[in-house]
Amino acid sequence: MAQLTGSIVKYPARNLVAWYVGLIVVGTIVLTLSICRGAGAPEITFLDAFFTATSAGCVTGLAVRSTPHDFSFTGQLAILLLIQVGGIGIMSITTFAMFNLGSKPSLRARAILTETLGADDNTDLKWILQHVLLVTVVSEGIGFAILLARNLFLYEPGKAAWHALFHSVSAFCNAGFSLHDDSLVSFQGDVIVNVTISGLIIVGGIGFPVLLDLYKNWRRGPLEGWVNLHLHSKFMLFGTAFFLLAGFGGFLFLEWNGVLNQMPLWKKLLVSGFHSVTCRTAGFNTIDLTSLTNATLFISMILMLIGAGSCSTGGGFKVSTVMVMALHAWKTFQGATRINFARRTIPSEVIQAATATALLFSFVAIVALTMLLVVQQSSTPHPNSPGLFLDAAFEIVSALGTVGLSTGFTGTLSDLGKLIIIALMFLGRIGPISVFAALSMTQRNTPVEYPKEEPLIG
Amino acid sequence: MAQLTGSIVKYPARNLVAWYVGLIVVGTIVLTLSICRGAGAPEITFLDAFFTATSAGCVTGLAVRSTPHDFSFTGQLAILLLIQVGGIGIMSITTFAMFNLGSKPSLRARAILTETLGADDNTDLKWILQHVLLVTVVSEGIGFAILLARNLFLYEPGKAAWHALFHSVSAFCNAGFSLHDDSLVSFQGDVIVNVTISGLIIVGGIGFPVLLDLYKNWRRGPLEGWVNLHLHSKFMLFGTAFFLLAGFGGFLFLEWNGVLNQMPLWKKLLVSGFHSVTCRTAGFNTIDLTSLTNATLFISMILMLIGAGSCSTGGGFKVSTVMVMALHAWKTFQGATRINFARRTIPSEVIQAATATALLFSFVAIVALTMLLVVQQSSTPHPNSPGLFLDAAFEIVSALGTVGLSTGFTGTLSDLGKLIIIALMFLGRIGPISVFAALSMTQRNTPVEYPKEEPLIG
Ligand SMILES: [K+]
Ligand SMILES: [K+]
Repeated sequence: MAQLTGSIVKYPARNLVAWYVGLIVVGTIVLTLSICRGAGAPEITFLDAFFTATSAGCVTGLAVRSTPHDFSFTGQLAILLLIQVGGIGIMSITTFAMFNLGSKPSLRARAILTETLGADDNTDLKWILQHVLLVTVVSEGIGFAILLARNLFLYEPGKAAWHALFHSVSAFCNAGFSLHDDSLVSFQGDVIVNVTISGLIIVGGIGFPVLLDLYKNWRRGPLEGWVNLHLHSKFMLFGTAFFLLAGFGGFLFLEWNGVLNQMPLWKKLLVSGFHSVTCRTAGFNTIDLTSLTNATLFISMILMLIGAGSCSTGGGFKVSTVMVMALHAWKTFQGATRINFARRTIPSEVIQAATATALLFSFVAIVALTMLLVVQQSSTPHPNSPGLFLDAAFEIVSALGTVGLSTGFTGTLSDLGKLIIIALMFLGRIGPISVFAALSMTQRNTPVEYPKEEPLIG
Repeated sequence: MAQLTGSIVKYPARNLVAWYVGLIVVGTIVLTLSICRGAGAPEITFLDAFFTATSAGCVTGLAVRSTPHDFSFTGQLAILLLIQVGGIGIMSITTFAMFNLGSKPSLRARAILTETLGADDNTDLKWILQHVLLVTVVSEGIGFAILLARNLFLYEPGKAAWHALFHSVSAFCNAGFSLHDDSLVSFQGDVIVNVTISGLIIVGGIGFPVLLDLYKNWRRGPLEGWVNLHLHSKFMLFGTAFFLLAGFGGFLFLEWNGVLNQMPLWKKLLVSGFHSVTCRTAGFNTIDLTSLTNATLFISMILMLIGAGSCSTGGGFKVSTVMVMALHAWKTFQGATRINFARRTIPSEVIQAATATALLFSFVAIVALTMLLVVQQSSTPHPNSPGLFLDAAFEIVSALGTVGLSTGFTGTLSDLGKLIIIALMFLGRIGPISVFAALSMTQRNTPVEYPKEEPLIG
């Protein structure tokens, strides 16, 4: 263990990549086995198994094959294990890397984070793994119990338990895989299912450090507890609430005369709320995405890009990164020379890391979208392939943000297209933490200072 | 003059807005007059006149009415005057504001810029206006002479002169208005026209300070001249060359089997080169945009966003802003604590200003695109309005970057849609300089320093 830990501290990005590659390779091999194939289903090609294993291991949820029909129970179990291992893995490893690398040991944040995790000596991978497992088992256990109770009214006990387990794990890990071909559309008006799944998604997506911090402070009561929270936890709670409300309001407004048109008010609210929760990173859906307006799909893409929390099962830019950038822009226009939030000053290294990460993310998305458009359309003029641009852009953002929502484009992917999406799911999963590791491990260098000269801006 | 100058120094953004509003109001009133209407053309509604005046005054080039058919010679002349006044206006005012506001008087850049403009006392609006006029008249004069010589082979002398004048002014001002309904498609293979228009676009788009700097240094020969150029000029020359080549290569590759398919090699190169020059901000076209692939339109949107140079007739993020952000990200990943380029250190205020400006720009684009999609589609599901997303996104970027290319969407705009595009053309024109002014005028405030704490990023 100590050796593994030491090695991960030294080469975190390389080890993380190796770890995920291993998981996906094993998953791919298992999923091509004939016992994983559903009765009467066509053979699972190597590429489709590769796609499915990557999607499950990276908890993305995009699917080129039908989970309920093309895979047997064994196949579904393999997918579930990939999701569970991938989800726990990313939570543990990112937490470990963030706590052990940090940017500067002298910064108070490092100290505070170490505090949260107990004594310094305990912050090794084993301690983190145990506690991540604990959080996972407790959350998924509660979700399982509620979903089981609900499912017993619908299915025979064995199926009820299997569905409850699968969806509870898939929701907590923000994987978005479902045992229904239409995801959760058939549970559109089921308040218990909607609330349970939403709860699991939010808990799994807010990030392990925030959960620990909340656990340590909840006894103090709301006011004193809030004051004692770390800056990162305040960021995440505030930002998550904000984006949940924005997504909810946006969906409600944009689809009021669209898909929500025929629904009673309570169902309008339920569907809008669930979409807002799920589209930031989980990837379930209770409405058919092909019936949404262009405007709704566009704001969904923005929410997918924003994503969830650091050290969580979610993906995207991360809420804290977006908030740092927004605060930075806002304060710059006010002429402020440093950025304060909740009586803390945000170090300039963090702001630099946030903008650099966002730029890299955007750059990858732009290159990938161009490649996907080339691969999927060859040289067709755009009036002969209308809708392709939105479909492809949505798919790219969904893969890179490890969301898993799709307007149906996944089914039309060519082999090259599938490879591009596989690469993006992988990059979306291990990219941010690798970038973080790279930024932390880099020897800070202080280049010679030349006379200052400003290029003109704007 | 001194009073006006003083007032502009004090409230540059407010005065700039007032100046442009005045120009557009006068233009709108003139264009609704019946003498401006083409023979047999339907009445120019107030909204269409407003749209056309804004598009011409902001040198954008989007058109809801046919310039050659719906407007009489007088109407075309009014459009040309709006373009000329708008183009000279933006070059002069932005140059004036940048030189007189700057961020810190102590920075060497300010001093150097003032140097370029001669003695300090001469850097008033009058001096700048005179020299901008000189550059404009010389450039447009050369363009006019070449285009006239070419046109005399095609038209009778009066028409030849009028077309040469109109296109020469429209190209130098990066306006993109044309006296042909198909822009320059009929001159697709005309090397003289392509090269002349491209030259005017590049000279008009690189920015007045760069032109002055080149003029001062060109006698020194290429090597010594280059060394003596200001950082901003080096940025612009390097960046412009890079993006021209990238756009050229991208177009050639993506359309090789598309619109370029039937063309001989020389024409393939000519068309690709012209598209690369024109789509960053000018807005002419020698191929029908509706026959391009989705991928080409996407990279064209990226080029439109990047735009041209500061203190020029072009729009967009500006080449220097994009380069500062790219350098910043690149150096951050290398762990560098300061950013050097060509033996100069870029002040951190400039980097902050660049990222804040880009974020604001993106935010405006996102809000506007959502609004336009809502206004243009009401509640239609996206499979029933395919292609809308690309068309609308292209139109938004084109308006905000004051480019003027369109996939034909301009003609389908509803009244509300027209108002959104008018607002964006206006924001795209006066926005960047207003932001710059706001950033410069803001009292630098140094908030209290709290204990440092880092939120987690990535
Ligand atoms: K997901
Ligand atoms: K233009």
